[in-house]
Amino acid sequence: MADNKKKMVEDITSMDVDFAKWYTDIVRKADLADYSSVRGCMVVRPYGTAIWENIRNLLDGMFKETGHENVMMPMFIPEGLLQKEKDHVEGFAPEVAWVTHGGSEKLAERLCVRPTSETLFCEHFAKVCSSYRDLPMLYNQWCSVCRWEKTTRPFLRTAEFWWQEGHTIHETAEEAMAETEQQLECYARLCEEYLAIPVIKGQKTDKEKFAGAERTYTIEAMMHDGKALQSGTSHYFGDGFAKAFDITYTGRDNKLHHPHETSWGMSTRIIGAIIMTHGDDNGLVLPPAIAPWQAVIVPIAQHKPGVLDAANELKARLAKVCRVKMDDSDNAPGWKFAEYEMKGVPLRIELGPKDIENGQCVVVTRHNREKHFVKLDEIESMIPVLLQKVRDGIYQIALENRENRTFVGHSMEEIMKFSAEQSGFLKTMWCGELECEMKMKEEAGLTSRCMPFEQENLGDVCPICGKPAKTMVVWGKAY
Amino acid sequence: MADNKKKMVEDITSMDVDFAKWYTDIVRKADLADYSSVRGCMVVRPYGTAIWENIRNLLDGMFKETGHENVMMPMFIPEGLLQKEKDHVEGFAPEVAWVTHGGSEKLAERLCVRPTSETLFCEHFAKVCSSYRDLPMLYNQWCSVCRWEKTTRPFLRTAEFWWQEGHTIHETAEEAMAETEQQLECYARLCEEYLAIPVIKGQKTDKEKFAGAERTYTIEAMMHDGKALQSGTSHYFGDGFAKAFDITYTGRDNKLHHPHETSWGMSTRIIGAIIMTHGDDNGLVLPPAIAPWQAVIVPIAQHKPGVLDAANELKARLAKVCRVKMDDSDNAPGWKFAEYEMKGVPLRIELGPKDIENGQCVVVTRHNREKHFVKLDEIESMIPVLLQKVRDGIYQIALENRENRTFVGHSMEEIMKFSAEQSGFLKTMWCGELECEMKMKEEAGLTSRCMPFEQENLGDVCPICGKPAKTMVVWGKAY
Repeated sequence: MADNKKKMVEDITSMDVDFAKWYTDIVRKADLADYSSVRGCMVVRPYGTAIWENIRNLLDGMFKETGHENVMMPMFIPEGLLQKEKDHVEGFAPEVAWVTHGGSEKLAERLCVRPTSETLFCEHFAKVCSSYRDLPMLYNQWCSVCRWEKTTRPFLRTAEFWWQEGHTIHETAEEAMAETEQQLECYARLCEEYLAIPVIKGQKTDKEKFAGAERTYTIEAMMHDGKALQSGTSHYFGDGFAKAFDITYTGRDNKLHHPHETSWGMSTRIIGAIIMTHGDDNGLVLPPAIAPWQAVIVPIAQHKPGVLDAANELKARLAKVCRVKMDDSDNAPGWKFAEYEMKGVPLRIELGPKDIENGQCVVVTRHNREKHFVKLDEIESMIPVLLQKVRDGIYQIALENRENRTFVGHSMEEIMKFSAEQSGFLKTMWCGELECEMKMKEEAGLTSRCMPFEQENLGDVCPICGKPAKTMVVWGKAY
Repeated sequence: MADNKKKMVEDITSMDVDFAKWYTDIVRKADLADYSSVRGCMVVRPYGTAIWENIRNLLDGMFKETGHENVMMPMFIPEGLLQKEKDHVEGFAPEVAWVTHGGSEKLAERLCVRPTSETLFCEHFAKVCSSYRDLPMLYNQWCSVCRWEKTTRPFLRTAEFWWQEGHTIHETAEEAMAETEQQLECYARLCEEYLAIPVIKGQKTDKEKFAGAERTYTIEAMMHDGKALQSGTSHYFGDGFAKAFDITYTGRDNKLHHPHETSWGMSTRIIGAIIMTHGDDNGLVLPPAIAPWQAVIVPIAQHKPGVLDAANELKARLAKVCRVKMDDSDNAPGWKFAEYEMKGVPLRIELGPKDIENGQCVVVTRHNREKHFVKLDEIESMIPVLLQKVRDGIYQIALENRENRTFVGHSMEEIMKFSAEQSGFLKTMWCGELECEMKMKEEAGLTSRCMPFEQENLGDVCPICGKPAKTMVVWGKAY
């Protein structure tokens, strides 16, 4: 009890006081993750792991529905293999961990711990792909990868992180492009429908695209503080990797061709996005689809006869319609309320002697603390309705935050004003030149998030250089 | 078609001719795994990964039923942390891969790629465990680990392998021992019930136990060639690691105590056990519980009107009772038969114009090629019955193989005779001395597999030294 009491009085930092501190307070207080003695690496605790498993199950189901198969690739990449695609190695070599010794022996060739696995998949494709009949090959793997980051924050940027990486090869460029789009759509659906995070779908500029890709698609979410979080990316490689790794197949014309390739990934970063999109000063707010417990039953005056029996019966009934926990520990109800608010459980169900007498219970939605008096004999049908209400409610709040923080820049003056006064998304036209993109970074501190698929015509010229505009870009500061 | 035809005529090596070659032929021909350019590391292909996912789902379900929670730990262990428990580091340091550089910088302290994660869990337990109320902590993780093996074979011994490792801490030694036993029982249940592999449960001798453990329990299976395969282990650590890592909790008596610890693991090796327990000269034979497809429908004369429609209808109906595939590719039925036998699909369902006319289909059980004529309107109820028949049938074959290859050694003469003439298990009494265990290794080439929980009294003396016997041991040659 001593620890529990201590925990109860210790509040978390308010997000308005220090957003970064608020974030790490939640990570720690909601038991999501802990630091380890390994530089930049985190321990994902049971509650954080359960969230990741739920995300994983949703995504894995979507991947399999569209014909993807999982594989398990080695965690090491020989230095020579990493170097086969020039742009790729330039992008990743500076941030990989190198294995130089096995046991007491020095290795003849260094191995890097995979930062991403294009090279390994390409090597494998070259071995197993021989005919157009083998195509498409639609592979995915769930694993952790390692990028030697200088400064790290749990979930957002860690030296090791968990993710899935899909790698596919196709007969035609059109099919590969369709795959790239389909998988981005899959990430967008996960974010919007299940995680209640509104995202902007678009294409990365050449400067921001993946090392070695011809084209990178992205979904960009806005966090509560107005900063952007790149939440999932899907890359189209053309046949560049296939050429570098000599992947060929005999086509319908009986000639040798190179297949067209894609890769796409989503990582444990998305847990950071969930925290920073939905959380508040009382803790985490979890989207119902991935909450380890969607509802928690807190018995009131649980020592009184009949209360625990009724709570147990309610739990058994609800277990058929949602992931439910019943907390009959001897902590006070007030402590439990605070604990499950911290953990972001979407629904709290209070059940006391009076409620039982009246054949009802009180259901409180976490995100707005709204009380719903629900008849016990209607509870199974009401809980799914309330869970949907939570999803819709938190989506709406996130969408409003994004809309309130999205501005348009028609001139350098407006851009600089935005940069000085606001934190959010800035939409401008753009000429397409790297020079202007660099200027945005240097003068306004903004990076291009994406060129949205849904374009708007904000004017004819690039406000940075005054030349004719080619496309609309969303800019922001990013995690 | 060219590739397919080639594949069809290319037989695999017979297991009687060359068991090792037969094994690797199956791994390759059944599309389970492939070699990679990373020394000793394999690529697990979609079919092998699907088998592992099924095993994982079964085990994960059992773990969660008994209150275990998954976590995700770092893949690296700082050298200093690995060294904290003396026996443990001695056991593992010679076979780990060392990371010495991050990007272009040399690390101040080397990191090893985890060969197992006791040290990481202990460090975490020390941080999160403070009161007896926090106990037990029942953690598990699914990951890959790395042991720098000199000679490797797919699944059986690879530099990297996938596994789960459970790590738990408990208030009392009794609870930790009960956990150690419970988890071994869980592995035994997986093997016997689901994988149809009979196992002997027992305790490892001190020589063979896990580095740092007080006691190691094991399940030992016999492969088709008589060699043993250690299929899962469960370790009791007492409070040795807790003391080394300073894990303490405030007990009910308000004093500080060290918790008692366990760990337990099962790996992708078990796929090797499945191959070598059930496979035959036609390929893999998969236990239904983990087969990616439990039944495959092969339409006969599929160009004839009505056949594919009937096959599709059958598939839709069977999808409700099993994992079913329908192969309407333009390969010949004979090719398909060979292909799905190679892949070990438990049931093949043949459906041609005549069958449709007669309202039946032919179901062939993979392991014995028995034909069952099943009425189409009884198919949903018959398939589960036939799948159970397969499980029972292959279990029985494996059990008989083990019984036929299990012998008793009452004297050194009988032991040497067994060693010269047989490949299998040898049961003897044993005095408990390391010297006799070493002599068995040196003179008879046998290692102790375990001291079975089910003891038999084969005599009063150790046949190796003639001194009083303490226990019965099962010996063998092991993978």
